[in-house]
Amino acid sequence: MEDYYPPDFREIDWVIENIRDIADLYCYEEYETPPIEPIEIFAAKSSDELVNEQSFIVEKKEGERLILIPELTPSLARMVARKSQELKKPLRWFSVPTCFRYERPQKGRRRIFKQINFDILGEDNLYADLEIFNIIVDIFSLFGATSKQYQIYYNSREFMDALSNLILKIPKEKIPLVYKVLDKSDKLEDHEFEKYVYDSFENEFVVQGILKLKSVNSIKDLMKKFDSIPDKFYNSDGYKNLVNFEKLLSDANLSEYCTFSSSVVRGLDYYTGIVYEVYDTGKENIRSIFGGGRYDDLLSIFTDDLIPATGFGLGVLMLTLFLKTYDLIPEEIREKDYTDTIYIASINQDVSIYALKLANLVRREDFPCLVDYRFSNLKNQLSRANELGVLITLIIGPNEMEQNEVTIKNMKTEKQKVIKIEDLIEEIYNIIDEYED
Amino acid sequence: MEDYYPPDFREIDWVIENIRDIADLYCYEEYETPPIEPIEIFAAKSSDELVNEQSFIVEKKEGERLILIPELTPSLARMVARKSQELKKPLRWFSVPTCFRYERPQKGRRRIFKQINFDILGEDNLYADLEIFNIIVDIFSLFGATSKQYQIYYNSREFMDALSNLILKIPKEKIPLVYKVLDKSDKLEDHEFEKYVYDSFENEFVVQGILKLKSVNSIKDLMKKFDSIPDKFYNSDGYKNLVNFEKLLSDANLSEYCTFSSSVVRGLDYYTGIVYEVYDTGKENIRSIFGGGRYDDLLSIFTDDLIPATGFGLGVLMLTLFLKTYDLIPEEIREKDYTDTIYIASINQDVSIYALKLANLVRREDFPCLVDYRFSNLKNQLSRANELGVLITLIIGPNEMEQNEVTIKNMKTEKQKVIKIEDLIEEIYNIIDEYED
Repeated sequence: MEDYYPPDFREIDWVIENIRDIADLYCYEEYETPPIEPIEIFAAKSSDELVNEQSFIVEKKEGERLILIPELTPSLARMVARKSQELKKPLRWFSVPTCFRYERPQKGRRRIFKQINFDILGEDNLYADLEIFNIIVDIFSLFGATSKQYQIYYNSREFMDALSNLILKIPKEKIPLVYKVLDKSDKLEDHEFEKYVYDSFENEFVVQGILKLKSVNSIKDLMKKFDSIPDKFYNSDGYKNLVNFEKLLSDANLSEYCTFSSSVVRGLDYYTGIVYEVYDTGKENIRSIFGGGRYDDLLSIFTDDLIPATGFGLGVLMLTLFLKTYDLIPEEIREKDYTDTIYIASINQDVSIYALKLANLVRREDFPCLVDYRFSNLKNQLSRANELGVLITLIIGPNEMEQNEVTIKNMKTEKQKVIKIEDLIEEIYNIIDEYED
Repeated sequence: MEDYYPPDFREIDWVIENIRDIADLYCYEEYETPPIEPIEIFAAKSSDELVNEQSFIVEKKEGERLILIPELTPSLARMVARKSQELKKPLRWFSVPTCFRYERPQKGRRRIFKQINFDILGEDNLYADLEIFNIIVDIFSLFGATSKQYQIYYNSREFMDALSNLILKIPKEKIPLVYKVLDKSDKLEDHEFEKYVYDSFENEFVVQGILKLKSVNSIKDLMKKFDSIPDKFYNSDGYKNLVNFEKLLSDANLSEYCTFSSSVVRGLDYYTGIVYEVYDTGKENIRSIFGGGRYDDLLSIFTDDLIPATGFGLGVLMLTLFLKTYDLIPEEIREKDYTDTIYIASINQDVSIYALKLANLVRREDFPCLVDYRFSNLKNQLSRANELGVLITLIIGPNEMEQNEVTIKNMKTEKQKVIKIEDLIEEIYNIIDEYED
């Protein structure tokens, strides 16, 4: 759990607002779901581990069993399904939920975290997946990250289904176990992985087949590892769509940022098509930043309408850590900029109401304004203004009030003069313009 | 619990962003606290009813007892206290937390709700309370609400302490009971209130005194109700500060929006000074929209430093309902504006990559862009563009691709022409400028 003090808030807000700009450019509309949901919508299709071990559960009241959402996709599916008739597809939707996982805090992972979600719903075309990849690349490019610093490792569940079923002869009901095993493969040494596969599958042919699936980075190389591949496999949608997608990435000049990986399958149960995991590829630092994929069947829990969907959830803290690794977050983002702020210092309390009137006057012209309520000790007031980095201070005393005037001071040049109130706004603009030149 | 579909999100976002502008004008810095906290920080000084009856409690894990925050102030106090040495006072802080209350949903109240919080910490001056009042009035004025539609009913805990103790001779430890009783007075008929007071206090003199405190709207009128008022009362800070505050409101031209009310005391335990409750004053609709006040002692739970504070938490839904009552939220806020969005329609799939390149081109110039992935049936694509209210559609086919050209169509005038790609951006500006004139 973490507090965001104002400098921390400005930093995370800067990251989120930059990404929100991209959502706008791609016409993704923002929505929001409640942070608490009935546990059933996660139990159905998310992941056992997530729901039973890593979630916060709310104490039962009136028979409701509620969960603090560990991820957004099931809520999104519920929400779209509820109005599936009236919502015009395709939907391009965007959200910045707070999610909750009960796990030991570690680098980049907190129990409470903000996530950025982009999803297209009602579009089964591979171009929708391509658009999502384009968005991911645009997000990283916006912050100045290069393809040397990150890669989108992608695969396809549909492809892996076909491979498991048609080449490895694994029965359909056992395929989820293939994903469970592969999803752990990157975290295991070769010999640990081998043991894990042997423990999970009995058939030696299957075991040998699955061992070949660890970290192969080209579809062709992967195919070469298998002796007899039936035509039925090459004619499957799984194979054809993945090869098509690879070509689309190349045509759209995205290959530089993307690498096939046979071991990327994602841990959640509901994925059905293209899946991916975005990695920091820096040598000291190899780790997954976030992932996503296509989940064409998830909405069928909630509606009879067929609503294919694809998207990702990006942890803001993980992205922020990545950006900091490569020095891509400007330090000054954390500081509040007081350049446009007008500071009002008063010589004594008798002029307080005049001070407030001036404050309202400058705020009406859209200048932020701070009034110092100490109403005495001008030196202290000016030094506070300097500390904040204010450019313009208004100093007022009884004379100014009597004459409808104000002393305006440029804190950088230390020049000051007395002006009429009606000239105040123009003079403020003059000082700011002069400073910015 | 409530989903915000995109139109609902735009509406609430419009309300919040407008208020965020005011936070900027007053230099309130945004922060954020976690939505879960240890229950102890609320149990100490908030309200028994709130913590024990109206809160969501998270199932115990590893001995932690956690609560979904029912309000923000204790978290803010904890957070400021933690860095009380390094944070330069006064702090002007702003936050938009999601809060949680387990109660029967009713008009304007949901179990999960967004709140807007403004607080000044480290400033004991009445001018800080005045600034908060100024902010409240600015918020309502920004949306176009008038003093006929709402009033800030204010009182002072310090004043009520003095009155209870020095005039009604109520011992200090019984004063919280006075607040508990008075806080309910507006919800009760006169005879119910009378019964409640008799049930709560035994002494007839005290009972008669408290009965006089219901809904008196001037300090003078209130004083007239008591026969013998000791000088000690008139010399108390409670009396003097409230009278001063009334004068400040008048000097700052805020009297129009503010009314004293002897029965406004607020339900939470931690208030110490000026308190207020903002009401919708429309005849059909009298109800409290939100409230706030000064809480000078709350931070002492967490730190030995003396940090006086004052502020409010405004429920966004309640405010939105108020604004809708007076028709102050423009309907069009709920609609996404596609005027600047470039829609790309393709005659067939062979031009798909060209379509994507054009999309990236216009997005680089900061125009939102939507690509229709149906790649056929131009009529359907154009009719979708019209449905959205798009102004400009780019139509591309094999000829356009071959010649590095594009057909640009003004959807309002229905005029279209073929142009070179290098002229595209200029032409987009031309059509938008023409439309806006």
